[in-house]
Amino acid sequence: MSAVLLTGGTGFVGRHALAALASRGADVHAVHHGPVPADLQPLATWHEADLLDVGQSRALVAALRPERLLHLAWYAAPGFWSAPENYRWVEASLALLRAFTEAGGKRAVAAGTCAEYDWSHGWCSEGVTPLAPSTTYGVCKDAVRRVMEALCADAGASAAWGRLFFLYGPHERPERLVPSVVRPILAGQEAACTPGEQVRDFLHARDAGEAFAALLESDVTGAVNVASGRGTAVRDLALAAARAAGRPEALRVGALPSRPGDPPLLVADVRRLANEVGWSPRIDLEEGMRESVGWWRSGGNA
Amino acid sequence: MSAVLLTGGTGFVGRHALAALASRGADVHAVHHGPVPADLQPLATWHEADLLDVGQSRALVAALRPERLLHLAWYAAPGFWSAPENYRWVEASLALLRAFTEAGGKRAVAAGTCAEYDWSHGWCSEGVTPLAPSTTYGVCKDAVRRVMEALCADAGASAAWGRLFFLYGPHERPERLVPSVVRPILAGQEAACTPGEQVRDFLHARDAGEAFAALLESDVTGAVNVASGRGTAVRDLALAAARAAGRPEALRVGALPSRPGDPPLLVADVRRLANEVGWSPRIDLEEGMRESVGWWRSGGNA
Repeated sequence: MSAVLLTGGTGFVGRHALAALASRGADVHAVHHGPVPADLQPLATWHEADLLDVGQSRALVAALRPERLLHLAWYAAPGFWSAPENYRWVEASLALLRAFTEAGGKRAVAAGTCAEYDWSHGWCSEGVTPLAPSTTYGVCKDAVRRVMEALCADAGASAAWGRLFFLYGPHERPERLVPSVVRPILAGQEAACTPGEQVRDFLHARDAGEAFAALLESDVTGAVNVASGRGTAVRDLALAAARAAGRPEALRVGALPSRPGDPPLLVADVRRLANEVGWSPRIDLEEGMRESVGWWRSGGNA
Repeated sequence: MSAVLLTGGTGFVGRHALAALASRGADVHAVHHGPVPADLQPLATWHEADLLDVGQSRALVAALRPERLLHLAWYAAPGFWSAPENYRWVEASLALLRAFTEAGGKRAVAAGTCAEYDWSHGWCSEGVTPLAPSTTYGVCKDAVRRVMEALCADAGASAAWGRLFFLYGPHERPERLVPSVVRPILAGQEAACTPGEQVRDFLHARDAGEAFAALLESDVTGAVNVASGRGTAVRDLALAAARAAGRPEALRVGALPSRPGDPPLLVADVRRLANEVGWSPRIDLEEGMRESVGWWRSGGNA
């Protein structure tokens, strides 16, 4: 089986993409920059490289000459929506993609975001909804996609772009919504959330990772939403988290103010993912929340 | 006067931007990679750097900490519309712009292209005409602009983007339209051109350079067409070249086939340039052609 170079393979989504690729029998070469969790070590041949150092990423690609690339690495720390690190990742991603095509790579898949869409449209359909990113993160991902599509077309390589929406699951950073509900409740406290009337498209991180593995193995090209296709009010997600943590009555909906300007609806059209890639989510909200809470209970840290 | 870092200052447009900035009294620091023509040497403090080597461009910017940046360097050899070098210049440009903002830069201006527009629209107006680049060059410039605008906004720097249309003038590469008419005629031969019915917006390279100097010194932000605003049929440009070369009867209009799919009209809306930047072209076609032919007659080589 042809080699796959995976970036971000220790990350929130990437670890599940790695497991999915390994279980499909792929010869995975994964980039790490920092420690590799023990459970992930046997799933790939690991290569240490700092992708922000173009020399290192070029050297790695030139040595491996992978036929396929799944590029999930990006800056993901709190504040990533507007962080200046996004700009560095544009340069790093384009350098990696260029090295990949120059080394004869045949198929590249990378992670995009629902933040590429014009959020005033609510329902986000790949070929229909206008693109108008309003965040640094969205602008930077959008630019990478535009260049990647032209670069791969010129090089005769196939390219797909999986647009992630809203994710939850184990290994989630503690600042994010679900941990901000689960952790206080597990600690015997109350948990505050906003009125949470806005509807979002939530997907479990393992489903997202498996979707990327399926997308890589398909021959689908262009942008593909990687999402559930189902709308869930934020307060219902918070309530599911509180219920899985055992004390739904400890959730104080509306104790935090709404964020002004938050769009009321952001839900993905998932017909390309379902009909062309042939992939659909497997983990429902209740099961996904049980798993997440289990991870926090067992002392999980991101 | 605050320092200006100029890239591409030995190039077709950049040499004129350099002269215009120098005549306005700017403290110009110009990057070169290769020899600096003798006439340009006194106009700037020259710094040797290969902008495709990010380490070199970062070191230069960190040492100079320029307040303003005029970034005109890009790949311009024959075949540039579809050359893979365009991708390297995306990375190099973004790295330069990022270094500039990180070093406290306050105003950045860079060169874009009419190839960012959807060419089915013909008349190209900054805030109106859809963007849909169909060439590698256009895709790459478009991506740099998108990221540059967000990067500068985040850094509190002012940014403008001058979209060049069609250029002619001394130092033009011999493969291009005007030299392909002038050189055979000066050599006593006939010159062949296409039927040339398509209408384009032509600007003399010195006018383009002066427009960039004016744009840099203005506080106008966003995309600004740098063009004449006048439509000229390609065959009329060729005829003006043949006339300036002294033998209009040696031009064989229609001796070369038309290029299929060439858009019939590409002309710029120049109201932003005229009314906001306050700049208009000074060189008419007859004078510009006389100067170009004079340069070829005197043995000019690009």
